[in-house]
Amino acid sequence: MLNKGCPEEELFSFFSQKKREDLDHNYILSSMCTLPHPVAVRAHCMFMETNLGDPGLFPGTASLEQLLIKRFAALYHCPDAGGYATSGGTESNLQALRLAKVQQKDIPYPNAVVPESAHFSFKKSCDILGIEMRGVPLDDTLRMDADAAAEQIDSNTIALVGIAGTTEYGMVDPIAALAKIANQHNVLFHVDAAFGGMVIPFLDKPIPFDFSLPGVTTIAVDPHKMGMSTIPAGCLLTREPDLLHALNIDTPYLTVKQEFTLAGTRPGAPVVGALAVMDYLGVEGMRAMVKGCLKNTRRLIAGMETFGFERAATPDVNVATFIAKKEDIPAPWKVSWTRPGHLRIVCMPHVHGERIEAFLKDIGELHA
Amino acid sequence: MLNKGCPEEELFSFFSQKKREDLDHNYILSSMCTLPHPVAVRAHCMFMETNLGDPGLFPGTASLEQLLIKRFAALYHCPDAGGYATSGGTESNLQALRLAKVQQKDIPYPNAVVPESAHFSFKKSCDILGIEMRGVPLDDTLRMDADAAAEQIDSNTIALVGIAGTTEYGMVDPIAALAKIANQHNVLFHVDAAFGGMVIPFLDKPIPFDFSLPGVTTIAVDPHKMGMSTIPAGCLLTREPDLLHALNIDTPYLTVKQEFTLAGTRPGAPVVGALAVMDYLGVEGMRAMVKGCLKNTRRLIAGMETFGFERAATPDVNVATFIAKKEDIPAPWKVSWTRPGHLRIVCMPHVHGERIEAFLKDIGELHA
Repeated sequence: MLNKGCPEEELFSFFSQKKREDLDHNYILSSMCTLPHPVAVRAHCMFMETNLGDPGLFPGTASLEQLLIKRFAALYHCPDAGGYATSGGTESNLQALRLAKVQQKDIPYPNAVVPESAHFSFKKSCDILGIEMRGVPLDDTLRMDADAAAEQIDSNTIALVGIAGTTEYGMVDPIAALAKIANQHNVLFHVDAAFGGMVIPFLDKPIPFDFSLPGVTTIAVDPHKMGMSTIPAGCLLTREPDLLHALNIDTPYLTVKQEFTLAGTRPGAPVVGALAVMDYLGVEGMRAMVKGCLKNTRRLIAGMETFGFERAATPDVNVATFIAKKEDIPAPWKVSWTRPGHLRIVCMPHVHGERIEAFLKDIGELHA
Repeated sequence: MLNKGCPEEELFSFFSQKKREDLDHNYILSSMCTLPHPVAVRAHCMFMETNLGDPGLFPGTASLEQLLIKRFAALYHCPDAGGYATSGGTESNLQALRLAKVQQKDIPYPNAVVPESAHFSFKKSCDILGIEMRGVPLDDTLRMDADAAAEQIDSNTIALVGIAGTTEYGMVDPIAALAKIANQHNVLFHVDAAFGGMVIPFLDKPIPFDFSLPGVTTIAVDPHKMGMSTIPAGCLLTREPDLLHALNIDTPYLTVKQEFTLAGTRPGAPVVGALAVMDYLGVEGMRAMVKGCLKNTRRLIAGMETFGFERAATPDVNVATFIAKKEDIPAPWKVSWTRPGHLRIVCMPHVHGERIEAFLKDIGELHA
């Protein structure tokens, strides 16, 4: 640590230099995060010092967190649903599995039935919680095989998981069929809609994935992904508003006496940022944004197929995947690889149509 | 959700109104968070969109995270220490216990030996991880009893925990004695310095609590507390730089192939905020800040004793506690209660000397 400290301008000149080492979003095609919407940034700055971990000190901010939850509850067809703002999908998924475990303490070797396409946060969460993760194979469209899921469920199963918008291929699992199976077996059914939760409701033909399906217990959604909020902004929704109280821990010295969250101190700023985007854009604005991302996804797939790159899947949301090799991709574009030979591009809001055309042009020149 | 969306000025007028419902920091005497330092806010805004969860996209920001870790490593007398920026103390403590558990997979019923004064995040973490938490009583100065701790350790003990600056009474456990015990029994020793980690090094006579003591394995410190950074900014430090790799999970589609963090997406903004404060103030600036907080703490204790309020402890850091009743405290001051009859005030940087005098004046008038 420096003894005397550094003059502010010298320090920020150094920070600017480091910032320039980060990649230019114009070339980032691989991320499920995006540039935050200006209203999210404005709200974030306004609520910079707020701490939702001590809501009695910040009752105004805490009421905005509850308003965000209410927005999702209405959007997901269960106005009375409860929930809270998490640090993102991992915390939401971990807390949902923790809920399942706490509710069924008597099961000594609990397992969770999870599609093979699930985000790695499920492996992390199962490891942490001591839950056996039972993988369910996908069908040939890369969606979870519902019959195979049903076969995996036994008396030690505490949770079934479905994904609404897989990280790698952008598929929506057969949530309606899975919800029925969960109901039949009376297990908690968690829908990981971290990505798709702010895409699917705004599609021309929304795929059923939410509390409109009896059997869906909890839903994870990340406003810091397609919600264009600042990081970290996740939400865990529960159909029963009081379900989370099963996780309560005593908090002797705070303005509340118990808390069910994972973190103690929690930033209010990104949470108000998330609400700002939803309320500023409204359903119509979100529909327009999603429409644009889907249009770009289709254009990218069509363009790539023109150059002979076969799609790896026909996605439900704005994730495009192709059979390709690393040397097929020109610099400085930043794409990702879900496995060797499978190229993945996420058409986030910052990936404008003009960037898709520029990418296709560069691909075309490399393969001319 | 609104259909058409809300005009920006109307929305922000509503947010302003909600913001005014939050408490005025001038009267908040109960929090371990504070108003962020202006350089933290400036750095936060500069790095608003960065995601440390995908460091290949943000190599500049990721290098600043490593620089923050290096600052703490040097401050804690182990320049080669490793670590990462967490969402705060709960994640740091959970990850330290997770490390202990992963390293000793063969122990079927692991336990952790934790002082009764430990933050409730340890109960949360032990519940999540399936670790038995063995409470160790405190001595009559409210510090962990090292002999009692040694007696609790058995062949199933995977971790010993000591607190450097307890949340409730501001005490530093006998870390040196505990480090020796941990060494003798060969268990991981985690020091929770979430609060004290940015106080103790800057005291006139620092109490040994860090890697200078052989036996200390991991340290938690929260820059969003006394480091005056924005929320969320925590750090987990490990003496062995590679220790965290025991927690690695495969991350197929990211710019890195594995990660050991709890969250996936992680904000870079508060992390650069934390570094900004440390580098701007330097050791001398932090010393001056800590000196002021300690002076205010002593003045508060002396003033309260003048009015007949007995101290509940003689703290090592800037937390003052008194025997008092709720009706002793005038509105609109916001204090906290560690247990019925024990008033607690944290003299954070936003609690200036003038606020202490104003509080004492109000107390004096109520008790005149």
